[in-house]
Amino acid sequence: MKTMDEFMEHTIQDLYSAEQQALEAMPELSDMVQNEHLRQAFTVHQRETEMQLQRLVQIAQQLGIDPEGETCLAMQGLIEEARDLLSQLEPGQLADAAIIGAAQKMEHYEIAAYGTARTLAQQAGQKQAADLLEQTLNEEKATDTKLTTIATGEVNQQAAQSE
Amino acid sequence: MKTMDEFMEHTIQDLYSAEQQALEAMPELSDMVQNEHLRQAFTVHQRETEMQLQRLVQIAQQLGIDPEGETCLAMQGLIEEARDLLSQLEPGQLADAAIIGAAQKMEHYEIAAYGTARTLAQQAGQKQAADLLEQTLNEEKATDTKLTTIATGEVNQQAAQSE
Repeated sequence: MKTMDEFMEHTIQDLYSAEQQALEAMPELSDMVQNEHLRQAFTVHQRETEMQLQRLVQIAQQLGIDPEGETCLAMQGLIEEARDLLSQLEPGQLADAAIIGAAQKMEHYEIAAYGTARTLAQQAGQKQAADLLEQTLNEEKATDTKLTTIATGEVNQQAAQSE
Repeated sequence: MKTMDEFMEHTIQDLYSAEQQALEAMPELSDMVQNEHLRQAFTVHQRETEMQLQRLVQIAQQLGIDPEGETCLAMQGLIEEARDLLSQLEPGQLADAAIIGAAQKMEHYEIAAYGTARTLAQQAGQKQAADLLEQTLNEEKATDTKLTTIATGEVNQQAAQSE
C-alpha cells in the first residue's frame, strides 16, 4: 500500500466487510431481546445497515474500486466476543443490558471507521463519497445514542431491580 | 451469569484485558510513527493507559472482584487488524494516517466499553467506581479528539500531498 487511494480502497473494503458481518450477526443478538423498544431499534438498524451497504457499493463505484476484498478482523472479534457473552446468559433484562453493550461496541467501531473514511475522502477531494460516508456516520451516532437512551431509561434499571 | 454484579465483574475484567493488550501493542504502533506530535500523543497515552489499568485494579478492589479472568476478544481482533494493516505499509505519512485510524478504533472500543461500565456502576449505586470509570472515559474521549486533530491538521493532508 503506497498511496492514499490504496488506503482509501482498503478502508472502504474493510467497512463493507464490517457491515456485512454485522448484518449477518444481528438476528443472533435481536432474537434474544425481550425489551420491545430494543427489538424495534434492532429492526430499524437492520434496515439502515442494508442501506449503508448500498451506500458503500455506490461509493466504490464512484471511486472505481471493488467493495469486496477485505475481511474486517476487528468486527470478527467484536462478534465473537458478543457471542461468547450471550452464551453465558438467559433471555431477560440482564441479557438485554448485555446486548446493548455489545451492540454499542459494534457501533463505536463503525463510528471510528466511518470517521476516518469520511475525513480521508474529504481531504482527497471526493466530495460525493465524503457526503455519503458522513450520512452513515451520523446514522451510527444516532443509533448509539438511541441505545444509550434505552439502556439508561429502562433496561439497566430493570436488570438491576430484578436481582 | 445471572446477576448485574456478575455482569459488572465480566465488564471490568474485559476492560482490564483490553487495556493490557492495548498497552502491549502500543509500541508496535508508535515505533513506526514519523510525525512528532503523533509520537508525543502515543507517549502520553501509554502513561495514561498504565494509570487506567491501576484504576481498574482499584475498582476491582472496591467491588471485591479479581480484575483478571477474561480475554477481550474484540481488542484481540482490533490489534490483529492493526498489525495486518501496518504490515502492508512503510513508515511515512500514509502509515501515520493508518496508525491514527487504527488507534481511534481501539479508543472507540474503550469509549463504548467504559460508557457501559460507568452506567452500570451508576445504576448499581457504586458511586466511587462510576466516578473512576467516568474519569477514564473522559480521557479516552480526549485522546480520540486529539488524534482527530492531528489527523486533520497535519498527517492526512501531508499523506494526500505526498503522492
